Amino acid sequence: VPHTLVVRYPARPRASRIVVARGALAGLGRFVRTLTSATTVALVSDARVLALHGTAARRALARAGVRAVPLIVPRGERAKQPRVLARLWDRMAAARLARADAVVALGGGAIGDVAGFAAATWLRGVPWIGVPTTVLAQVDSSVGGKTGIDLAAGKNLVGAFHQPLGVLADPDTLATLPGRQRRAGLAEVVKAGMIADAALFRSLERDAGALARGDAGALERAIVRAIRAKTRIVQRDERERDGGPRTALNFGHTLGHALEAAHGYRRLLHGEAVAIGMRIAARLSVREAGLPGRELERLEGLLDRLALPRRMPPTSLARLAQAMAHDKKRAGRAVRWVLTPRVGHASVPRLISSRVVRSALLDAGARP
Amino acid sequence: VPHTLVVRYPARPRASRIVVARGALAGLGRFVRTLTSATTVALVSDARVLALHGTAARRALARAGVRAVPLIVPRGERAKQPRVLARLWDRMAAARLARADAVVALGGGAIGDVAGFAAATWLRGVPWIGVPTTVLAQVDSSVGGKTGIDLAAGKNLVGAFHQPLGVLADPDTLATLPGRQRRAGLAEVVKAGMIADAALFRSLERDAGALARGDAGALERAIVRAIRAKTRIVQRDERERDGGPRTALNFGHTLGHALEAAHGYRRLLHGEAVAIGMRIAARLSVREAGLPGRELERLEGLLDRLALPRRMPPTSLARLAQAMAHDKKRAGRAVRWVLTPRVGHASVPRLISSRVVRSALLDAGARP
Repeated sequence: VPHTLVVRYPARPRASRIVVARGALAGLGRFVRTLTSATTVALVSDARVLALHGTAARRALARAGVRAVPLIVPRGERAKQPRVLARLWDRMAAARLARADAVVALGGGAIGDVAGFAAATWLRGVPWIGVPTTVLAQVDSSVGGKTGIDLAAGKNLVGAFHQPLGVLADPDTLATLPGRQRRAGLAEVVKAGMIADAALFRSLERDAGALARGDAGALERAIVRAIRAKTRIVQRDERERDGGPRTALNFGHTLGHALEAAHGYRRLLHGEAVAIGMRIAARLSVREAGLPGRELERLEGLLDRLALPRRMPPTSLARLAQAMAHDKKRAGRAVRWVLTPRVGHASVPRLISSRVVRSALLDAGARP
Repeated sequence: VPHTLVVRYPARPRASRIVVARGALAGLGRFVRTLTSATTVALVSDARVLALHGTAARRALARAGVRAVPLIVPRGERAKQPRVLARLWDRMAAARLARADAVVALGGGAIGDVAGFAAATWLRGVPWIGVPTTVLAQVDSSVGGKTGIDLAAGKNLVGAFHQPLGVLADPDTLATLPGRQRRAGLAEVVKAGMIADAALFRSLERDAGALARGDAGALERAIVRAIRAKTRIVQRDERERDGGPRTALNFGHTLGHALEAAHGYRRLLHGEAVAIGMRIAARLSVREAGLPGRELERLEGLLDRLALPRRMPPTSLARLAQAMAHDKKRAGRAVRWVLTPRVGHASVPRLISSRVVRSALLDAGARP
């Protein structure tokens, strides 16, 4: 006689508290104390960010009586390696980080990814607090709970959905950011407007000059609005189900990821690759999704004013196709493109004939 | 002006389907097809288990049209190393395991732990199916969703709560198990009766002879009942909150874990260490929790009839104290003992004076 039991586990609702405010970094200690009962935090950062903001962060934590153990990881994507993760685990053990303690990720998107994943897996999950210090991390990677690391076989193949308990985004930390990196981060803000918030898009058009200059007030307004837009999407589709609302966030990313991969993640910043990817996705949208030509021009004009690249660096069509196919095989499906029928909206990802894609890529500077 | 957003993520209820049936292994393919839309599964196992049950498992999967990619890990606890996990990830990439695919863990508790953790983290989480082939894994590790690996600093320091979508426990697979390992697994069944199910405890007393011999019918009855008991506990406290119902499962484990650690996880099987730990926890319960002396005798008698050890191998008191303290520091708290006021019940973990513990350990064979 077979015995069958169905064990149902009660749902655990979760929430993230996101604070955007100039000067907020000075309140990090109180923020951690309000959200957690941590007495120790693992302060994951890289040497450069720690030199810029480490003292402020540690003082703020000390004032609230929280012990900070700094764990330094390599800069950029090199932080997201299995061996860096394993070293973080060993150092969390050495720091005796307990279940009630927390991880604080101080830095850009890569730091949030690896620190959030370390938090997801240490003692089977401890809370984490994001303190993003780049535009990209403030508007994008710190919302939605995607954490993870890369393998030799591809980026972000390993990870967890682990929502930060809190995110403290201080636009003042962006003042030390190189202009190129700040502008690249704005590509994700443009994307949020393009796929989900026409009013945000219009405000970016109004503020483009101030944003390109790095005006703190304009940045703060844009960041808050972009976070709200992304938040509305990920709340409806936390796990990015096939064809779900969250897939819209891949607008510009089908080609963007392929461009980054084709150039070994060195030549183009993520936001720059996404800007090129959005331009091409918008051109395909005119042809395949009814995007009016004047809206394509609005997108191109906005990206131009933010000094985001118009054409791709020399890249062979074959290399791009290979990179897109690699992505495809990972998902076990053909390449699908997120298109937009008009500013503020996205359509469900769809197949586009390779002839049409090829011609759009050639137009954008790919080499035959 | 600070901007604060609270992002609430909808709760995601989860369920595990557990099937216990002799001969169930032959239905593995249908089970996977019913629960998932996998076309490929990573079949994680060790060489010995694969030699015994691999052909049956692979045939069952092939009959249902599911491709099985065998991923072999070292035997026993050595499977639970960060570098074994990293190799699993690389091989899952090579196998192009997609989001809709699944991991099947075929083997004992260590295999479920590492395979379940690989599933929790591959592509930020894919489903996994447990096919436990030891008594311990069938009654204990496949229920409750604890997955993970060990670090040099301690066991199970890294992991995730990731409930298996299904568990297929086939008592016929226990026939090939060495008697010592089968009996050690029964220690966790005794524990389930002792802390949560007096009727299970009585049925174990009736069936002790048959269980010690490895009678398949008696094993099946005991396993089903032990799973039900554990299930009731973990449903109420999935994440083992401090002092929550799940902590009762640590009955016998405070000392059990310390004994295993003191002997380098070689000399004693987990269940043997837990049996010694339960005897001592029960003696402390007589003194500190009002357990009647005749109930202590029932526990000792049952463990004796299952040929589970009465005394610890030569172990210095200092080494045991050190191992228990290590456990303590990890949790950031003093050592607490789960005691029992009577068969079928557990009390909240509590502090016991070190003088009393010391004298109980000396009585059980620890060396001063």
